[in-house]
Parts: sequence; structure tokens; C-alpha cells
Amino acid sequence: MSLHRIMADHKVTFTVEDTADPIVASIPTGTLLSDAARQAGVEVGQPCGGQGRCGRCAVQITAGNVRRRSTLRLSQKAVDNGFALACQSVVEGDASIFVPAQEKIARTLTTDRIAAEVSVPADYDFATSQTFKRISLTMSPPSMDDQTDDWSRIQTALRTQADINDIKISLNGLRNIGTMLRECNWEVTVIIETDPNGGPARLVKVLPCHVNKTDPLWGVAIDIGTTTVSLWMVDLITGKVKAQVAEYNGQIARGEDVISRIIFASKNNNENEMRELVLETIDQLLIKACKRLNARPAEVVKATISGNSTMMHLLLGIPAASIRLSPFITAVNNLPLMEASEIGLHIHPEATVDCLPGVASYVGADITAGVLSSGLDETEDMTLFIDVGTNGEIVMGNRDLQITCACSAGPAFEGAGVVDGMRATNGAIEEVWIDGETYEPTYRVIGNSNPKGICGSGLISLLSEAFLTGILDKAGNVNLTLPTPRVREGAHGAEYVVAWGTETDSGQDIVLSRVDIDNLLRAKAAIYAGFTVLADQVGIPLETVAKVQVGGSFGKYINVEKAVQIGLLPDVEWDQFEFLGNTSIKGAYQALLDWRKRKQIADIASRMTYIELSADNTFYEAFTSALFLPHTDASKFPSVQAALQKTP
Amino acid sequence: MSLHRIMADHKVTFTVEDTADPIVASIPTGTLLSDAARQAGVEVGQPCGGQGRCGRCAVQITAGNVRRRSTLRLSQKAVDNGFALACQSVVEGDASIFVPAQEKIARTLTTDRIAAEVSVPADYDFATSQTFKRISLTMSPPSMDDQTDDWSRIQTALRTQADINDIKISLNGLRNIGTMLRECNWEVTVIIETDPNGGPARLVKVLPCHVNKTDPLWGVAIDIGTTTVSLWMVDLITGKVKAQVAEYNGQIARGEDVISRIIFASKNNNENEMRELVLETIDQLLIKACKRLNARPAEVVKATISGNSTMMHLLLGIPAASIRLSPFITAVNNLPLMEASEIGLHIHPEATVDCLPGVASYVGADITAGVLSSGLDETEDMTLFIDVGTNGEIVMGNRDLQITCACSAGPAFEGAGVVDGMRATNGAIEEVWIDGETYEPTYRVIGNSNPKGICGSGLISLLSEAFLTGILDKAGNVNLTLPTPRVREGAHGAEYVVAWGTETDSGQDIVLSRVDIDNLLRAKAAIYAGFTVLADQVGIPLETVAKVQVGGSFGKYINVEKAVQIGLLPDVEWDQFEFLGNTSIKGAYQALLDWRKRKQIADIASRMTYIELSADNTFYEAFTSALFLPHTDASKFPSVQAALQKTP
Repeated sequence: MSLHRIMADHKVTFTVEDTADPIVASIPTGTLLSDAARQAGVEVGQPCGGQGRCGRCAVQITAGNVRRRSTLRLSQKAVDNGFALACQSVVEGDASIFVPAQEKIARTLTTDRIAAEVSVPADYDFATSQTFKRISLTMSPPSMDDQTDDWSRIQTALRTQADINDIKISLNGLRNIGTMLRECNWEVTVIIETDPNGGPARLVKVLPCHVNKTDPLWGVAIDIGTTTVSLWMVDLITGKVKAQVAEYNGQIARGEDVISRIIFASKNNNENEMRELVLETIDQLLIKACKRLNARPAEVVKATISGNSTMMHLLLGIPAASIRLSPFITAVNNLPLMEASEIGLHIHPEATVDCLPGVASYVGADITAGVLSSGLDETEDMTLFIDVGTNGEIVMGNRDLQITCACSAGPAFEGAGVVDGMRATNGAIEEVWIDGETYEPTYRVIGNSNPKGICGSGLISLLSEAFLTGILDKAGNVNLTLPTPRVREGAHGAEYVVAWGTETDSGQDIVLSRVDIDNLLRAKAAIYAGFTVLADQVGIPLETVAKVQVGGSFGKYINVEKAVQIGLLPDVEWDQFEFLGNTSIKGAYQALLDWRKRKQIADIASRMTYIELSADNTFYEAFTSALFLPHTDASKFPSVQAALQKTP
Repeated sequence: MSLHRIMADHKVTFTVEDTADPIVASIPTGTLLSDAARQAGVEVGQPCGGQGRCGRCAVQITAGNVRRRSTLRLSQKAVDNGFALACQSVVEGDASIFVPAQEKIARTLTTDRIAAEVSVPADYDFATSQTFKRISLTMSPPSMDDQTDDWSRIQTALRTQADINDIKISLNGLRNIGTMLRECNWEVTVIIETDPNGGPARLVKVLPCHVNKTDPLWGVAIDIGTTTVSLWMVDLITGKVKAQVAEYNGQIARGEDVISRIIFASKNNNENEMRELVLETIDQLLIKACKRLNARPAEVVKATISGNSTMMHLLLGIPAASIRLSPFITAVNNLPLMEASEIGLHIHPEATVDCLPGVASYVGADITAGVLSSGLDETEDMTLFIDVGTNGEIVMGNRDLQITCACSAGPAFEGAGVVDGMRATNGAIEEVWIDGETYEPTYRVIGNSNPKGICGSGLISLLSEAFLTGILDKAGNVNLTLPTPRVREGAHGAEYVVAWGTETDSGQDIVLSRVDIDNLLRAKAAIYAGFTVLADQVGIPLETVAKVQVGGSFGKYINVEKAVQIGLLPDVEWDQFEFLGNTSIKGAYQALLDWRKRKQIADIASRMTYIELSADNTFYEAFTSALFLPHTDASKFPSVQAALQKTP
């Protein structure tokens, strides 16, 4: 009798806060409580991917047998009260579990209603820019005298009526043509995709009868961000973006950052779950966009996809473990064209899926697409391009050269790793001003409610104000001698109170502690050190760059002046900054429209020089120098020096 | 409330002869009894594909409500006793059904034990004949200084170590390479397939570590016959056939001939069932062959498949309905190379599947492959190639031209449509001699048991003997005036008794009736008329052909002299006949081994001229003239005239 056979099942009862009936599941000995919850259909968030680090999956054992492997993130009091980390606890007998209500992400994403209109490239011309063609064919029906098979008949029609001499078709296509031709009485419209490199064209779809030349032909540009997935639905005939939708990436519950996701995916069979989660998100977006346009997802014949290398691997079910482990290698940077049915995307099954190329594990297609849409690779001016999202990727260059690196900034500016940090949703303090005499703060809260915490832009603004008013010194130490109760010794070292409990949602004080400050300094130092290394490689002083382009939603919300004041951005003139929004999806959109732009992204990816910072000798020194406000070398930040002199 | 909702389910109880427990199923109103049986897991054969024509699906209604739509094939007595055709009866209430034991096909197929050894083509050389290459690669592992992605690393190794400069890979391949490279410490063997037309090579498989140059590399040649599926397992390194296995096509239960199968497949959702049935048969063959060779199906990297056009469409799930209906058009004759996972073949998922090209609905890849293996397209001599299986396909030609047609001979020579006809299995009378004075027959029975019926070769021999002894006249009339009780008036017209009930398995007389004779004459006339039409097209008298090549198992068992005597084969010298066995799988084997042979088959398919007999004016006249023994024009059969003169 094998071990497998003698393993007993246990009755595990889950009671979820704010729901009516408990859920009972039969769970084998040795199952992780987080897996058991999943099997029972109970949602327990795992922002760290099940590493036992974040503490967000804490549940309460109200009865029975559960073995805790780690309680790292739980206080002794919580453990005494029966709390356990679901990802670190193993079912060993019948048990009853109380699951606290899970944090819901408020939906405040870019959609048509708030998005800027996208202008179609001036030179867009369906006939010459696009790889797709829509061709109406009229064929004579087969007869006893003309016994040509259906596929040869289509090939002949394409040759004689559209000068297409070499065309291929998938098995799925072959399954459909016969019925279609007969139902439509040998008059059909075919959608084909040509190969700009001279390879055979491909039959993508057969449409019944003739269509109007002005009827839309749908394509989608997709950006898979670690946090947000965006989709633009585009009429390939006119090139117009007809709908913009976005949604949080469904993988978030299995890890907030790429590292946590890789860890989760690398566990048994989870690769598939990760794949399905993001596919579900894309499905939702497709449905939403199609509904708005009165279209069907099956009418979409091409998807151009951008995203960082981890997102691309997880989307395609390609193991991503090697991305996380030194020496940090992707399985593939240049993906072949695929068909939608291969990857499980629910558009037309034979639709083309074009996954844009990346450069390295931490410089993905989002950056190559971003560089294309920013125009960096076409300008004479030396330009610094930064995309601060969950990671910080940087490119320095111009039309002659492009050098790139990735900074493991960590998600501090997304509110993680900061005690009172949070995402930029309702209740987040998004900007702070501090009076230089009284040290009293004023703040603005998203949604105008009572504050719940501080988001990234709020943290930058708070750090800057605290520094300029002398609450913090250059090294980030809190000056406890100031005459205000807002500076004090707290549980995590010295701290500054931003909001008293009487003002807040939870009744607890919202503070910025020494530990938080260190996390924020490390994050900004990592990014700034990245700038320094790239500038050294190019051989110019960082301050002499002609332009600083900021991509991602980060640039949309932060106060640049304050970001310069804490040393997160280089101290250049205001008019040298450009804020470009989601450069990744903009690049995907351009590549979707124009095969020459797609080729340009491939060129960018193949020419870009990647610097692995963890292997770079100058990085550590640059990082250490940047761990100060704004920097060890104050002369690099003349505007900050001027501001400090103005402050009393 | 919709009609769908008010349809009730009924309790239908199936009792299968010779099995213990009845099976009860819940079946909705309006379900065909044959579908109900399938849902209940009860096997009811449908040799005619559910057209109500063959009568083999008769079951007995022992209680309850079943509406009979047609009872065409049942006697009044059978109907009175509750018999019904399962394919023509509809469930309308609770019912109990008795299912007689279903005819089991005795397994007497060609396998290693009885197959002739196949010789490897003399010029076979793995390095030059084969599109596959097996290459050992040693790569330096990635490092901080060499951040090349896995797929680019393999590409570089192939370029520098094997001079392969252009290679593609499937998504599935990309999912596997990373793990494989790391597990094998960057020393792997890759199997790639090159494109003789100069297109990119394709990575098929990555094997762990290095393999021996002499280790086998497996490919399979498959012939999908309407009745029998054959598979040869071939070591591509040596070219040797290492196992030959065959099995009845699992689709037989859903129709004995291609027409019945198309009808069955064209019904709701049955396309998939047909596909799965033949895939299951191939799976069984793979398992059997692999077991014998201590190999695994996943080690097979290429399959070359031959078969008639209907079998090819059904294998691939391509609708075949248009093959059956005038003007008889296939969806596709030239199939693209596919990967095994696309079509559901359980060899290596990325293995190449090469489906050989056909010419028309009734001249498929089995004939183009057959012509290749027969050498017809390379000889100077005018040759007649015939493949009489469930259908009769004919080619006339030489290296300069090839003309082909298909005769709807029907399955009379496989025992169908003949009252006491049966397949060539145990109990079949396979040869008959008749004494010219007493009219008493002697016969040989397969398996030496009591006779159950007469198979194809027995019918040919019986027809010939009866004609030569004067029992039948030229027109097939039975001479009832002969002084023997063996000629008599029967239920289906005049008949000759081959075996008295006292000698037979069932206790019933085995006879050849007037109706049977007409069926056999029509079958042989259709084939002979095909010869005539082709000879007319070529512009030579049929009798002047230099060679008559007979493919298929048919040629293996028939007595050629007798086949000539009834006018089924042309009257040429004995040494002008060649019996080639399964030319279809032999052609597939050659194409599997050598890309030049594969190209040759494509040339044959594209050059061959197809004559659609039903549209040919001369066919009907030729057919009518051939409805006699041996022919209206006796001068075409000098050897038969001579034999008749010898007979007293």
C-alpha cells in the first residue's frame, strides 16, 4: 500500500467574514491551508506569492488541527488567538477556519471616460502600413468538369484576383472553408496576413459574402502590466483607437510583484493557474471593449502584446523560474508569431498574436515598445527614459545608441514595505504640505474621505516636505528635538505623525517611521544609481541629458519638483521633463498598426545594450551615494540647494 | 417555456445478449435508439452509418414505447416479434431493449509474424535522405556577463556547431527548453527538421544529454484504410522497418464503406467521434509496436500518413460531406505539414505529421503513394495499376503520363450486398471447385471449420466455376434445367447451393442467388469499365498494357485466373501480373525515409489526370458491355474462350 493511499482526508470548514454559510471541504493531510482554501473556492490573498513574508493571508483557526510552519509575520498575541498564515500552515486533521474579509482593490483605472484621445499616426494607410488584407473573392462553383478541391480553389482565386501567390492555412482553417464556401455560394471575403519578410501569406479568416470596405476590422493592443492590464481596441481600417479599457491583473492575488508571482508559478502546477488568471483578465477586457463597440471578440484578428518579460512568460505558460535566480535568464526574448488558439486567447482562433520582443529578464517588451513610442531611438538628443512601475527600468540613449538597466527598486512607491503605505485608491493621502514653522501637515486624500494610509505620490511629497522643513536630515534621521508632538519615538524607530487617529479611517495614527524612510531611500537610491551607471557608460554627466522622459502611470501623479527634491529624478529644468503615460501600450498600438514600426521595435531590442546592475562594480558606490536626501553630492541638485536656502 | 424544457427523460433498459446485468439510462424524448445505446455505453454496430439500409442494428423491443421510422430491412415476422432498427427508431417513453450479440471481427491482420521483411532502399542515407537531423550541442551556461536568453543560446549553438542558420520553434517547445537545458547542464541533443525547400528548420525535440549515434530515432508510416489501419515503425537512422502492426479501423462500427462513414460523420457532432475512433486505433497500434520495440510513443518524431481522401478528412476532422455529394469535391488534397498535437496523435507533441497528397475525392493519397511504390511513374512500359479495396481505384500510365479514375464497385467483393457473403475471416469459404459432370462443389474454408458464408475470393472462384461448368450462362442466369438439386428457385430468385445446411455452421444452406450474381456482375463491370475508359483515354487497346499491377490485400488472396475468367481483370499473360500488397503503406514508408520520394509523390499528385466516371459518356456503354461473363465481346478474353472450349 502506497503512502498516497493511506493519506486520509479531513473535513475543513471555512467561515468567511461577512458571508452567510460556512463552506466545508474534504482536504487531504499535508495540504497547505492556502491550497485548501482555493480548493474550497475561498479567496485568500497572497500578495507575496505564498512566501510567508507579507502576512496578508492570516486566518484564524477556531477549532482543530493545523500545523504552523512559520509565524514570522504574526505577533505572539495573534498566534495566541489562533491566527496562522494560510500559506505556511498545513492541514493535519479536521479544522474550522475563520477567514477575515479580504482587501478589495478599488477600481480607478484608465478607461475611455478618463483617457486622452489617441491620434492615429499621420502616415497610416491600411493598404501599405498593415500586414492584413481584406479581399473579396468570387469563385465559380465546382462541377463535374472542374473538380478542384476547395483550398486550391481559394488559392487560385487569390492568385488571379489578388496577386497573392503563396499562402498557408491552419488545420482549423481547413475545417471551416468547405462549409463557408458552400453556405456563401462561392462569394466570400477572406482576411489574410502577409509576411513583410517575403514568407508565405496566411489565411486568417473567411467571412460570409462581401463586406463593406468601411466595415471595421478589429485588432487589439494589449499591455500586460504587473499591476494593470490595458487593452486598446483598434479599427485596423482607419487605425483609430475605438475603446480603451483597463483592469487589475488577475494574478495580483497570487503575488504583488514579479518575484512573488514567479515563486508562486514555480510551485506545482501553478504555471497554468497564473496563465489562466491573466487570460481571464484579458477576456474581461475584450468583453468590456466589445460590448461598448457592439463587436464580438471572435472578430478580432490580431493582438499585439507588450509587457515585462515575467508577464510574457507567465502569459504563455513558459517557466519563469530562471528569471528570478542568478544569473537571471529568460527562456526567450524574441517570440515567434502565434495563433490565438495556441495561447488560449479568446479572439478569433486563427488571429495573429504578436508578442513584442524584450531585451533581458528585467527589461522586457514594455521597454522596447516604450522606447519606440517615446521616440528616443529617433532623436539626436541624449535622452533618459524611465518607466517606474512595480520595477524601475531605465534607458539612456538617442538614435545612435541605447543602454538600459533595471533597478530592483521594489514596490515602496506603490505603498508596499511602508507601514502605512497603500495603493493610490480611495483613502490614500496623495499629497502633503508641511508648515516650516509649526511642522503641522496639510494633506489631500483620494476620494475626499478620512485617510487610510499614504500612496506613492504622497510618500514622495511627505519625504520632500519633511526634508525641506528640517524634520529629516540628509541621512533621513528624524529630528526628535523639534517642538512638536508629531515627532516621537515609535514602534519602528523615530517617526513623524502625518494624521492623528481622530482624523483617520481606522482610528490609528498614520505615521512615517524610520524604517519606512530607509525603505524609501533605498528605492529612490536604486533608481538614481541606475541613472548614474548609464550616464557613466554613455560617458556624460547625468545632468547634461537633454530630455527626461517619464513613462507609466507613476509620472501622471507625482509632483516632479518633489521627486527631484528627494533625489529620485535628476535635477534638470522643468521643460526638459516629458510625461508620456503608458508608453508600453502606445508602442504596442504603433506596432499593431504598422509593420515598419514593428520592425523598428525588433531593431531596438536587438541593438539595446543591457547592463546587469548586480554585476556592475560602479553600481554599489552610486547606490550608497544616493542613499541621502537628495544625494551625498549636493552639487548635483542645485535647485534643491536653492530651495533649502529659502527655507528658514 | 421552450420545447426543450418540456422534453421529458425516459428510463430505457438495455439487456445485452451474453452479459449479466441490464444497463439503465435516462434518455430524452426523441432520441434515436442507436444514440441512446451509445449514451448507455452499449455497442450497436451500424455498418451502413445509420441509414437504415443494412439491418445490422436490429434490436428487440421487449417492453415500452419506441416509434419505428423505417423497418425496411426487417421481415414482417421480425417486426411482429418486436424487432426494430436502432438507427431508425425513436425513444418516446420508458422501454426495455434486448440487444443481440454483435458480430465480432476476427483478427487476422498482417503483423510482423506473417509480414514479409521490408528491404531498406539501397541508397538510403540518414544524412542526405532524411529531413531530420540529430545534433549534440554543448553550450556554455549563462552568466552575469552572458545574459543571452535560452532560445537564442540554442540558436547560436546551432549556427556555430551545426551550420543551421534559420530555425523556428513552437510555443510548446519554448515551454520545455529552459528546464531541459538546466537539468542537462547545457549539454543536450536536439532533433531538428530541415526544410528541403529552403525554409527555416524547426526544432522538434530536445533530448537530455548526448545520445549514441546508433540509438534509434523513430518514425512511423501509417496507412489508414477504410477497413484496416496499418502502421510501420521505422528507425530513421538505419531506415529499417522494425515493427509492422495492423488493426481494423475503429470507425467500422459506424459504417463499413466511406459513404456510410461520411453520412454518419455529417450528423450532429459525429465528426469528432469519427476522428477519435481512428485516433484510438492508431494509438493502439503505436502502443503495440512500441511495446515490441521497448520504445515509447513520445519518442516518435515523424508520422507519414497515407489513406483515401475520406479517411484523411475524417482523421483531421475536416467535414467530408462534399466528398459524397455531386460534384464530389474534397476540402483539400494537399495538406500542410502539421504537428502531432494539432491533430491529436499521441506521439511526440511537436512531431511532424505529413499527410500525403490526394488527387480527388475518390483518388486519395493511398493511390499517389501506391503509384510511387509500384514504380509506375518511372517505367517506360504502359502499366495498369489497380487497388481494389472497399473501393476500386485504377491508374493507367507510365513515366510520361498517368490517368486515374475511381470505380464505385461497392463492397460486394468484401462480402457485403451478398446474402451469404462475409469478410475473409474464420468460417468463410475462400475457394470453390465445381465438378463439370455432377455439378457438385468442393470448397476450402478459412480456419477449417464448418462454413458460415463466402468471402470475396470464394465468390470470384464460385462465379468462375459456375460459369465454366454451365451452371450460369453469359448473362448470369442459373440454368434450372440441370440434373442436380443444387440449382433451384429460392427466395431471391434462382440459386445454386454451395453448402447444404447439414454441413454449415448455422444449419442453413449457403447459396449464390440471382440477386447476389447481379451485385457481383455490377461490381466487376464497374471496375472493368474503368479499365476501358482509361485505355480509351490513353488511346491503346486495354489488352496491350505491358503490366497489370494489383495492390491491396485483394491481390494476395484471389485466384487471378478466375478473376480473369469472370472478366474482373484483363486477359493478359500470367507473368504480366504483379501483386504488390499494401502499396499505400509502402509509399508512405518511402516518403517517410526520403524527402526526394516525398517530392515525387507531390509530383505524381499534381500531374495525374483524374477522370470522373459519372461524368464520362463512354463509361456507361463500357459498363453495360462488361455486365456479362466474362464480357459481351468474348474476343477480349481469349484464354477464357479456350477454357470454355476445353470444358465438356
